[in-house]
Amino acid sequence: MLQISQRGQAMPASPIRKLVPYAEAAKKRGIKVYHLNIGQPDIETPKMILDAVRHSDFKVLEYSHSAGNESYRRKLVGYYESVGIHVNHNEIIVTTGGSEAIQFGFMACLDAGDEVIIPEPFYANYNGFAVAAGVKVVPVTSYIENGFALPPIAEIEKKITARTKAIVICNPNNPTGYLYSYAEMQQLKEIILKYNLYLFSDEAYREFCYEGHQVSAMHLQGVDENVIIMDTISKRYSACGGRIGAFITKNKMVLDAVMKFAQARLSPPSFAQIAGEAAIDLPADYFDMTKAEYKSRRDLIVKRLNAMKGVFCPNPGGAFYAMAKLPIDDADIFCQWLLESFQFENQTVMLAPATGFYGSPGLGKQEVRLAYVLNLDDINKSMDCLERALEAYPGKK
Amino acid sequence: MLQISQRGQAMPASPIRKLVPYAEAAKKRGIKVYHLNIGQPDIETPKMILDAVRHSDFKVLEYSHSAGNESYRRKLVGYYESVGIHVNHNEIIVTTGGSEAIQFGFMACLDAGDEVIIPEPFYANYNGFAVAAGVKVVPVTSYIENGFALPPIAEIEKKITARTKAIVICNPNNPTGYLYSYAEMQQLKEIILKYNLYLFSDEAYREFCYEGHQVSAMHLQGVDENVIIMDTISKRYSACGGRIGAFITKNKMVLDAVMKFAQARLSPPSFAQIAGEAAIDLPADYFDMTKAEYKSRRDLIVKRLNAMKGVFCPNPGGAFYAMAKLPIDDADIFCQWLLESFQFENQTVMLAPATGFYGSPGLGKQEVRLAYVLNLDDINKSMDCLERALEAYPGKK
Repeated sequence: MLQISQRGQAMPASPIRKLVPYAEAAKKRGIKVYHLNIGQPDIETPKMILDAVRHSDFKVLEYSHSAGNESYRRKLVGYYESVGIHVNHNEIIVTTGGSEAIQFGFMACLDAGDEVIIPEPFYANYNGFAVAAGVKVVPVTSYIENGFALPPIAEIEKKITARTKAIVICNPNNPTGYLYSYAEMQQLKEIILKYNLYLFSDEAYREFCYEGHQVSAMHLQGVDENVIIMDTISKRYSACGGRIGAFITKNKMVLDAVMKFAQARLSPPSFAQIAGEAAIDLPADYFDMTKAEYKSRRDLIVKRLNAMKGVFCPNPGGAFYAMAKLPIDDADIFCQWLLESFQFENQTVMLAPATGFYGSPGLGKQEVRLAYVLNLDDINKSMDCLERALEAYPGKK
Repeated sequence: MLQISQRGQAMPASPIRKLVPYAEAAKKRGIKVYHLNIGQPDIETPKMILDAVRHSDFKVLEYSHSAGNESYRRKLVGYYESVGIHVNHNEIIVTTGGSEAIQFGFMACLDAGDEVIIPEPFYANYNGFAVAAGVKVVPVTSYIENGFALPPIAEIEKKITARTKAIVICNPNNPTGYLYSYAEMQQLKEIILKYNLYLFSDEAYREFCYEGHQVSAMHLQGVDENVIIMDTISKRYSACGGRIGAFITKNKMVLDAVMKFAQARLSPPSFAQIAGEAAIDLPADYFDMTKAEYKSRRDLIVKRLNAMKGVFCPNPGGAFYAMAKLPIDDADIFCQWLLESFQFENQTVMLAPATGFYGSPGLGKQEVRLAYVLNLDDINKSMDCLERALEAYPGKK
């Protein structure tokens, strides 16, 4: 009989999307579902960048350069300069979303059987990209009690073996919203130098910091060869569907290897490169407005959550996610129950069970991730739902 | 010292793009270069489908469904119906170009160490996708003397081992232009049934057949579980930069596995899905015009090539490529020489050496691939260049 591959079997289904059929069923029953489960912002994509695509004037929708249009990469240099990252356009490879940047890094730097250390909870799709590359994810646990700070260096060192090749961070973090401090980034620098590791830094949420600024992995001195940034325009400009990201490093050997993978898939999407290039000319205050909006949402959702009996939600420093510990038996069962068996004034809320973000089995069973991608009014209504749901849920703990 | 991965080292550079620096240098010297080296058509993308994107009216550039917009997949059902392929929208996963469809197939169906048999010469990027997946490409040689017909079944059977999991074909073929006959497709059907193999069928050039019609792998009866089609809108609508393709199979187990890879990368590009969906409403005679144009180019280039002393070019039945055997010592050296050391009336021609399309070392040294993606006038001028170049080339044979 025909078989799928072992990696096809090992590939995890998306933990964020697995509850979708229950949400669809709820909607068919006439229930309004507030989607706090997925990082799809409701913020409008800047009209200027959509208009750049709409007003584009070419006759042939051609392949671009495999590294992305040179004009776009040259403008990106200026963008990165503005956030204190000094690169030239040949150190940037435009990718098909941040997803492809992560895949390129895994493929070019890691072999099957190699290990990457990732503080958990972590962005669930790192698991999928690791399975595709045959790479083993070694989680090191961070805890809700201290807001998911970087685990102590001693804990990270315990996980290092001869097969360890890289540490992956997401900063500010998805799913925790944690923003690594300068001191923590220095600790990471020391460890990658000591053990000769790559540092893969996913900086998709760079602009969205509410307590201080992001310390980019590329702000670290003396680790040019080790540092790789995975980036995307998806969250920055609310342009998730464009599928444009970037792979950035000063390591020439890695760039050369990644270019071969980039050439094999020919080029990143042309339309959205136009949008990405236009985005760099957005007015300087663009992020102020967006950031202020997300901050007010964060303040509201954290306040509402912590006001609920038995709920604990540390205040996230960045991104647009909050993790909360709930007085429940099992987050997977609870999140399904919210969609299947609960409604308040004909409404309910969809959350992401945190179990899917942990690599260690059994962790996160009382935790959920909430993406504050809805407006304040909707957040209030969804929190009303959650508050009542926690009172009504039979699996209280 | 930090290393790149073994697969990063093994990854082949694009044989089509490796001469680019020589072409750039020629242009800097003021020489006009006719690009017959790459399958980037000069045919205009239908204005209607570009306008569909230009007139799109949405506020947020959102992720699409991981399998592609349902509205697009439902319309694709009608397109496939029109070419005798009967599928429903759940049997189609929209991909980021045909490239991603090939990667998904390799990842979901094949493990590291598995083998795929591919008639050579073949599309060079299959090598790259195989390296990424850890899969071994086993070439079975087809020959220019009989126009690159499918190698005898006995030759294919000789290559089958316990690790053989699939046969990959491209039909009509890139780089040979060969169009597999009904009888050849039946032979492939028998062999995949006998040995329980997948048949990966890359049908990017389906519409461009000049001698009869394409027999799709999905026209074969009784092999629904075995057949996977890799498709793309790139060539069909001259929309290479869109990066929209499709992975199609009736094998539910494979679809489920591929969906997990599709979810990990979130979604295919949103803008170009709008273009792809609009393309299905192009008037019925759209392909007639395009096909007639390509046919007249093929007729011209084949006639010009065969009129040159010592040149043999079999008449390709489809796609927009011709392979020619030249009276030269080494195609790689010759193609570089064309750019570095030759000009006729301040013009030269860029060709793809065939060596990059063979898996067996040493084959194709006298062959080149010509993509007839330029208009008749440019083809004539490029053939004038080639004719003079063959007279002047010092490495004649």
